[in-house]
Amino acid sequence: MDAHDILTTSYLFRDLDTELLDIFARATVVKRHAKGSLLFLHQDEATQFYVVGSGWVKLFRETLDGKEAIVDVVNAGHLLGETAIFEQNHYTSSAEIVEDAVLASLPLSLLQEKIEADPKLAMKLFTAMSRFRRQQEDELEHRDLQTAPQRIGCFLLRLCDPNHNGPVRLNLPYDKMLIASRLGMKPETFSRALNRLKEETQIHIDGATIEMSSIQQLSHYSCSACSSSYPCQDLG
Amino acid sequence: MDAHDILTTSYLFRDLDTELLDIFARATVVKRHAKGSLLFLHQDEATQFYVVGSGWVKLFRETLDGKEAIVDVVNAGHLLGETAIFEQNHYTSSAEIVEDAVLASLPLSLLQEKIEADPKLAMKLFTAMSRFRRQQEDELEHRDLQTAPQRIGCFLLRLCDPNHNGPVRLNLPYDKMLIASRLGMKPETFSRALNRLKEETQIHIDGATIEMSSIQQLSHYSCSACSSSYPCQDLG
Repeated sequence: MDAHDILTTSYLFRDLDTELLDIFARATVVKRHAKGSLLFLHQDEATQFYVVGSGWVKLFRETLDGKEAIVDVVNAGHLLGETAIFEQNHYTSSAEIVEDAVLASLPLSLLQEKIEADPKLAMKLFTAMSRFRRQQEDELEHRDLQTAPQRIGCFLLRLCDPNHNGPVRLNLPYDKMLIASRLGMKPETFSRALNRLKEETQIHIDGATIEMSSIQQLSHYSCSACSSSYPCQDLG
Repeated sequence: MDAHDILTTSYLFRDLDTELLDIFARATVVKRHAKGSLLFLHQDEATQFYVVGSGWVKLFRETLDGKEAIVDVVNAGHLLGETAIFEQNHYTSSAEIVEDAVLASLPLSLLQEKIEADPKLAMKLFTAMSRFRRQQEDELEHRDLQTAPQRIGCFLLRLCDPNHNGPVRLNLPYDKMLIASRLGMKPETFSRALNRLKEETQIHIDGATIEMSSIQQLSHYSCSACSSSYPCQDLG
């Protein structure tokens, strides 16, 4: 993947004027990062932001009494560290590679300069932030109103291509324990909920492989307890 | 409160150039809204956004199976409905007045026009959205890592003036049942947690009145299980 390929996986850089995209691409460094490596630390001074080309990255913070709080686990198309420009150039969380990743790294100063100069880019960043806000609102809502199996169903649905028809086969994208943490569940709650999801929806789960006869099998189950309808507006 | 007074309660309009602030103020309509009235509905077409001058407003959505999901309950200085400009001019939640309120109403088209024309205003809106994102991240984190009494303590701390020294006396801002919903707790969980908070921190709770000898009495208790330190960065 070259700089252009990675940048255009992100909503922010898609459909930009070629000239502006080229400026960003020329300032981009593409690098492989091995599973387990730390990209940046919460409250570190920030000069770079990142676009995920492939792999998975965990965003997290530590509480004063030493527990880990997972902010998000993100894949291709997501930005990392860009919010530092609104926080006096400090990262708002730590970032760790949880599945081998290819990342594009760009200077935050360039992003700041261009969103101030280019209203179209600014509006795209606003839209991206607004989608993320919507996603967090949904997540908070789900903690209150969805059951644990429904929340796992929601997590799986977000891995599916909403335009796909017919049977679906997908792999859990990263470690089950991390999925549990990401969903705010204890490991034993997650295991029990996964079994209940199997029983109640008849989807097949074998290790990390999930098979279902259609997306509807799951969306009917999970999305009835949500204020959004499938496919979620914050996707894409 | 006139239009200027209300607008400048919000971070977005504070320290703006006088000329630009005057343009917004001239387009503002200030109105009282009685407790119980509906301001707008989720997915309604949006032409106006609002700044809360006083009172409390509940933002909520309804799930497909008819339950209410509370997105937020906000007071003076908060914006309502402004995110519609990033969502094809549709409100992303419903809004109901929960304590008598004075609101300033402004055209969304004016906001859109000015953030595209004025990078300083755009950066202020970015910063406001980024703070809100941080607040939601903290909230999600608290659901996972704080106990119910710690979360009530956090809610109370956010009502305090962080610069205040010595004893604090404050009133619960709105109905206890709504506070419970806002914190994602069942009424009985909330009552039990409130009692445990009293026992464990020795703060006094009498009806809707809370008294404590100092803010530290509460911040020590709640903030040790949080990745932020008091006062929270998303406040102010």
